[in-house]
Amino acid sequence: MRIVVLAGGIGGARFLRGLKAAAPEAEITVVGNTGDDIHLFGLKVCPDLDTVMYTLGGGIHEEQGWGRAEETFAVKEELAAYGVGPEWFGLGDRDFATHIVRTQMIGAGYPLSAVTEALCARWQPGVRLIPMSDDRVETHVLVELDGERKAVHFQEYWVRLRASVPAHAVVPVGAEGAKPAPGVLEAIGEADVILFPPSNPVVSIGTILAVPGIREAIADAGVPVVGLSPIVGDAPVRGMADKVLAAVGVESTAAAVATHYGSGLLDGWLVDTVDAAAAPEVEAAGIRCRAVPLLMESVEATAQMAREALALAEEVRA
Amino acid sequence: MRIVVLAGGIGGARFLRGLKAAAPEAEITVVGNTGDDIHLFGLKVCPDLDTVMYTLGGGIHEEQGWGRAEETFAVKEELAAYGVGPEWFGLGDRDFATHIVRTQMIGAGYPLSAVTEALCARWQPGVRLIPMSDDRVETHVLVELDGERKAVHFQEYWVRLRASVPAHAVVPVGAEGAKPAPGVLEAIGEADVILFPPSNPVVSIGTILAVPGIREAIADAGVPVVGLSPIVGDAPVRGMADKVLAAVGVESTAAAVATHYGSGLLDGWLVDTVDAAAAPEVEAAGIRCRAVPLLMESVEATAQMAREALALAEEVRA
Repeated sequence: MRIVVLAGGIGGARFLRGLKAAAPEAEITVVGNTGDDIHLFGLKVCPDLDTVMYTLGGGIHEEQGWGRAEETFAVKEELAAYGVGPEWFGLGDRDFATHIVRTQMIGAGYPLSAVTEALCARWQPGVRLIPMSDDRVETHVLVELDGERKAVHFQEYWVRLRASVPAHAVVPVGAEGAKPAPGVLEAIGEADVILFPPSNPVVSIGTILAVPGIREAIADAGVPVVGLSPIVGDAPVRGMADKVLAAVGVESTAAAVATHYGSGLLDGWLVDTVDAAAAPEVEAAGIRCRAVPLLMESVEATAQMAREALALAEEVRA
Repeated sequence: MRIVVLAGGIGGARFLRGLKAAAPEAEITVVGNTGDDIHLFGLKVCPDLDTVMYTLGGGIHEEQGWGRAEETFAVKEELAAYGVGPEWFGLGDRDFATHIVRTQMIGAGYPLSAVTEALCARWQPGVRLIPMSDDRVETHVLVELDGERKAVHFQEYWVRLRASVPAHAVVPVGAEGAKPAPGVLEAIGEADVILFPPSNPVVSIGTILAVPGIREAIADAGVPVVGLSPIVGDAPVRGMADKVLAAVGVESTAAAVATHYGSGLLDGWLVDTVDAAAAPEVEAAGIRCRAVPLLMESVEATAQMAREALALAEEVRA
């Protein structure tokens, strides 16, 4: 079975770990979000790709969900001693090495997809990880800061401001001119199932879908497309998805996220058992809906979610 | 008193520490060698400038003579795990931060001299440190390797091969088209004394003198130019200067180095007491020569060497 998964960072990565356990024989292609990539200290940092790579490769800081295990911070301390910021983005020494290798390869002319493949040669994530695009796409958030409207990089909004200021719009700058990375459309075209993990529907999956050609390829693939709600009990399971949903005018409910994707794209939708009452609304919108436990409390619990998603896909197919 | 010092790495840096102790009121400008600069992992590394900066700024690894004190090696370990080399150049985590800041500033368009000034704002070395040039000059060594003549970067010859293969020539690639960095010629023109510390006469001071305009400015400055022999008892005090002296056809003796510089450049020369017999040969070449202890065993011993150099300069002036 060939499965394509669109993934953001922590939520996508953890879901993928469960999916690998649930479908060890499947060929999994992950289309990773690069809209939250950022240049820091002259280095290209790809937080979502790295979170997937480190999580599936056994290098992730488990409690934190991002960054490296057994991390040290000598480089960051030194940069601060030089007065060079930003200090709000916590890069550890081991993580720095990844960005140094990536930046060196990009400087040598390799596209991000080739760089990602090279990095994965070490991590052996057990999936094929492809960035959504080799072109630069940068998610900016229009915020209200000190009484003024101002566009800031997503990471500045998310990490520095902790999504605590009003957001009026989310713009994937550069997306309209970006091309899907080599292999993305091919993987979608050859997929048996396409899954949307409980990643952020706006700044993770939404950004991937904003790359011209990807949404269309998924809609036209003629295979089941099943998603898992990142909203449980009207609140994001993790992170601050409610804030960016508000910015795009979508309610923070499991049903609203499903209808935001729409039946043109989505065939099936899993909501948590606490949101079972939302199922009729989702089904009324033409999307088959099941309520199952959606908390990724362990690899086994997550594997069970993946099994439910695959079962729903088979139900849709039949 | 305004003193200009041409400096390589360890020898130059240690001498400067003694000079600062000997002449605390002096305005010292250091023209640093950049011929051994190297790009590693996409980062610009300036070993000699950093050795001077770290030594005078209190951050040097004392025993080693280069690199940072209390250093860790997480980044290097990770790069090795990615299979990214070279592994023979030992960059520590703290040191990496310096190269990251430098590379970022150069990428933003700042010349190396401005970058060096910015880095020194943190280290407060107590001297004005200027790279010899903002232009790229790279010392290559023509070596015999596996039966073939091959040009390698100086660092490859020095660090990887440990100067253990025959060297036939030393070429400061790019020097002929390089311009002295802003402030270099001005400092030489305004100097009261110019000193050559016991740095490598070929790949450190020789490279600085290869930048068109610097040798001429020193020769024309009309002030005493005094050097200290890096060769004591026919062997380099430290490092492998004998190997590169042989490559340029100069004997490894205190006298031969003095006549290699020549009386057109050098007015005074200090040799170690064990080389006192060399003095007549140096004086016969038109260079005033004194024999004094030249081992930099402590800051005080080094300060005494600096005092002897300044005294010889006054003797020459009178």
